[in-house]
Amino acid sequence: MIEPKIENYSEVWERPARFDELASLLSEIGRSFYARGWVLGTSGNFSAVVSRNPLRLAITSSGVDKSQLAADHILQVNAEGKAVAGVGHPSAETLLHLMVVNALGARAVLHTHSVWSNIVSDIQAREGGVRIEGFEMLKGLAGVSTHDYGEWIPIIENSQDMVALSESIAQKLNEQPRPHGFLLRRHGLYTWGRDVAEAKRHVEILEFLLEVLGRTAHATGRGSY
Amino acid sequence: MIEPKIENYSEVWERPARFDELASLLSEIGRSFYARGWVLGTSGNFSAVVSRNPLRLAITSSGVDKSQLAADHILQVNAEGKAVAGVGHPSAETLLHLMVVNALGARAVLHTHSVWSNIVSDIQAREGGVRIEGFEMLKGLAGVSTHDYGEWIPIIENSQDMVALSESIAQKLNEQPRPHGFLLRRHGLYTWGRDVAEAKRHVEILEFLLEVLGRTAHATGRGSY
Amino acid sequence: MIEPKIENYSEVWERPARFDELASLLSEIGRSFYARGWVLGTSGNFSAVVSRNPLRLAITSSGVDKSQLAADHILQVNAEGKAVAGVGHPSAETLLHLMVVNALGARAVLHTHSVWSNIVSDIQAREGGVRIEGFEMLKGLAGVSTHDYGEWIPIIENSQDMVALSESIAQKLNEQPRPHGFLLRRHGLYTWGRDVAEAKRHVEILEFLLEVLGRTAHATGRGSY
Amino acid sequence: MIEPKIENYSEVWERPARFDELASLLSEIGRSFYARGWVLGTSGNFSAVVSRNPLRLAITSSGVDKSQLAADHILQVNAEGKAVAGVGHPSAETLLHLMVVNALGARAVLHTHSVWSNIVSDIQAREGGVRIEGFEMLKGLAGVSTHDYGEWIPIIENSQDMVALSESIAQKLNEQPRPHGFLLRRHGLYTWGRDVAEAKRHVEILEFLLEVLGRTAHATGRGSY
Repeated sequence: MIEPKIENYSEVWERPARFDELASLLSEIGRSFYARGWVLGTSGNFSAVVSRNPLRLAITSSGVDKSQLAADHILQVNAEGKAVAGVGHPSAETLLHLMVVNALGARAVLHTHSVWSNIVSDIQAREGGVRIEGFEMLKGLAGVSTHDYGEWIPIIENSQDMVALSESIAQKLNEQPRPHGFLLRRHGLYTWGRDVAEAKRHVEILEFLLEVLGRTAHATGRGSY
Repeated sequence: MIEPKIENYSEVWERPARFDELASLLSEIGRSFYARGWVLGTSGNFSAVVSRNPLRLAITSSGVDKSQLAADHILQVNAEGKAVAGVGHPSAETLLHLMVVNALGARAVLHTHSVWSNIVSDIQAREGGVRIEGFEMLKGLAGVSTHDYGEWIPIIENSQDMVALSESIAQKLNEQPRPHGFLLRRHGLYTWGRDVAEAKRHVEILEFLLEVLGRTAHATGRGSY
Repeated sequence: MIEPKIENYSEVWERPARFDELASLLSEIGRSFYARGWVLGTSGNFSAVVSRNPLRLAITSSGVDKSQLAADHILQVNAEGKAVAGVGHPSAETLLHLMVVNALGARAVLHTHSVWSNIVSDIQAREGGVRIEGFEMLKGLAGVSTHDYGEWIPIIENSQDMVALSESIAQKLNEQPRPHGFLLRRHGLYTWGRDVAEAKRHVEILEFLLEVLGRTAHATGRGSY
Repeated sequence: MIEPKIENYSEVWERPARFDELASLLSEIGRSFYARGWVLGTSGNFSAVVSRNPLRLAITSSGVDKSQLAADHILQVNAEGKAVAGVGHPSAETLLHLMVVNALGARAVLHTHSVWSNIVSDIQAREGGVRIEGFEMLKGLAGVSTHDYGEWIPIIENSQDMVALSESIAQKLNEQPRPHGFLLRRHGLYTWGRDVAEAKRHVEILEFLLEVLGRTAHATGRGSY
C-alpha cells in the first residue's frame, strides 16, 4: 500500500486566469452537474481563482437554479468574500471556498449535494470519515498513480456557523496525508484542483466512488464498509 | 432543534401574472420532470395562479404526455375548476390544486409521481407521514435557514373521491407547523410555492430527500426510518 | 376492489393509418426508450398496424442500434410476418407481435428489455406472474379508473421456439380479466394499445411500477412482494 | 444448455478502415458512454483497428474528459503501442488493447468504468469470474443465438504492471469457451467486437447484465449470485 505525497498546488498559484472564461466554464459544469442530479434545488456552489494579488475568486451567486446557470450568475469576490463585481450575493459558503483556496493553493473548488454523498456521509459519520481503497478510479485523483492506494475522506459534522465550520475543516486539511476532498455530514462533497478541469474530474471520481461504496453496502447488507 | 414559522404566502397573493408566461414555464418544467422520470405515463399536473380577483388558475390539461408538454396544453380554470380558456379538460385533481391555492395562498402547485415518493409513502403509511430531519437540503424549503430542522411530510391515504380527499388534506395543512408538501400514498407528491420557481425548487428538494431516505432504508436494511 | 372489464380494442380496428407517420413515431419512441436504458444492445422491437384488410404491420427491422433508430429501419410485414416493404429482416419476435394484434385487436405493440423487468420477472417466476395493486399509476392503463385495482401481469418462461411461445402467451391472454402486458422471464416486457401513444403510455406505466416493486423488495429485504 | 463456439474474428481481419471515420465513431461513442456514467473522470479508453499490415490502432489519447471527446483526441499507434500520428499520449492500457486485438482478431476494443462493473467484480472476485446465464440479452453477444446459454466473464486482479496484467489476461482469453469480455477487479470492463458497432453492443449488453446481477444481489439480500 503506497500513500503518495499529495502535491501542493501553490507552484501554479501565480498563474492569472480570465474571469469571463472561468465564469463560462463554471456555469457549463454547473448545468451538467444539475443534469446528473448533483445540484438540485439551487444547491451547490462553484469557484475558481482569478488572481492572487489581490485575491479574486469567481464564485456562483447564491440561490440560482443550476439548470439555468449562466456566466452572469458568477460573481467576483475578494479575500474577505465581499462581492467586487457582478449581480447577486455570494453564497454563505464562500468562506469555505476561500479557506480551501488559501490552505491548499487550489485554483478551483466545487461543491455538490448528491444522494450518495448524503447517504455515505451519514452512515460513516461515527468513523469520522470514509476510507476509499483499492479502486482504479482513485488514479483520477491528482498525484495518485496506482489503485493500490487508500484515500481517507474526512466527514465533518454540518454547521451553519461558517467560522467554526471553516476551522474544523482547516484542521482536517492539515492532517497528513492531505485528502482530495471532504464530506459535510448529510450535506455534500467539497473537492478542488489546480484548475477547473481537475476539480471537475475530482467531483466525478469521488461521486463515482461514493456511489460504489453506498451501493456495495446495500449489496452486502452491511450498513458500514 | 428549531421549528421556524413557515411563512404564509398571502402577502404576495395580489400580484398578477401573465398567462402565456406561466403556461410556457409550466410546460418547460413538465418536460424536464418527464426527463427525470417524475411524470411518466401522462401522470402529474402543474398549476400557477394567474389572478385572484377573479381567481384564475393556469393548469395542465388532463392526459397529456409530458414529454410533449407545450404551452397550449395549459388551460385556464376558475375558482370552481371549470375551464374558461384553452383546449382540453382540466385534471380531476384540479380541486386539490385549488384547495392548496386557497388554503395557503400559494401561487404555484406542482404534483409529481416518482418511484421514491411511491415507495416512501407506502413504507411510512402507518406512521401517517415521514419526518425529514438534519439535512442541509432542507434549507431549500421556504423559510428554513438551517439543516437543524425537522420537516414532517404528511402521508394521506389515496382516494378517487376528490371532495373527501381535499378535506383530509385541508385538515393536515392546518396543523402547525405547516408542511411544505404532502404525499398521497402509492400516488405521489404535492408541493407548492410563492411562484413557479419556488415550487419547482420544492419538488427538487423533496424528491431528493425522499430518494435519500428510501435508499438509506436499503443500505441499513431497515424497512422504516 | 374493482376489477374493471378491460375493453377490447377491435372497435377501432378498421381505422387505416399512414405507414410513414407510424414509422416516424415508432423510431422516435425507440430513441427515447434507448435513452432510458430500456432497449440497449439492439434489443427491443416495436410495431403498429397499418391496415387490417389485408393485415399490414409496421415493425422494427432486426438488429438495429436503437440510439440510431430512424423511420427507414421500419419494415412492413404481412399477416405471415413476411416483409412486403422496406430494407432488412423483421425480428424473430414478429410472430408475437402478430399474435397480440390478432388476439386483442391492439394497433400497436411495444417490447422493452429493462433492468427491472428482468429482475422482477425472475424473482416472481415461480408465482407465474406479478400482482400490481393499489397504485395511482395503474390508472394510466386503458379502462382502469381507480388506484383500487389489481393488475395481474403474467410471467411466461422464455423460449426460442416462437410458435410454442406464442401459444403459451395466447393462453394467458385469454384468461379473464385480460392483462395489459406480459413479462417473458429474464427477457422483458410486452405491452400494447389502441394506438402508438397508448402503447407508449403502457410501457411507461408498467416499467415504472415494476421498478417500484423491484426497489420495494430491496427496501424491505423481501425477495418477493 | 448450449455453449456455442465463439467465432474468431480473424476472417474479417484484413479489411482496412478509414482512420477519420473510426476516430469520429469512437469519440461519439465515448460521449454517449460519458452521459451514461460509464467513463467519468477521464476514465475509459476505446480503440479500433485501422490496418493490420502494418498494424495501426486508432486509440483514445490519455487523460481526456470524455464529455468533450472529439475525433482529434484519437491517436494512431503501431504494434508496439507507440504513437505514429496525432497529439497526446496513448493510454498506459494501450498494451491491453493490442493484446486483445492480436489474441482474438478483434477490430475494436472498448473499456468502461461503471459503478456496477466495480461492484460485481469485487463481490465475485473470489470466484475468479461471474457466470451470466439464462438471459435473453445474452443473444446480443456475437455467436450466441439463445438465452439458454451461460457466459463466464473472468475477473482478473487489477495491477499497474501492464506486462504482467497482459499475460494474466491472455491466459484467461485462451480458455475455452472464449469469453466476450473480462472484468478487472474494482476497475472495469473490457469487451470487443469485429467492428466498432459490435463492440459497442457488447458494452451495452454486458453493462446491462452486470447491473441486473448487481441489483438482484440487493433484492434477494445475497452478497453473491
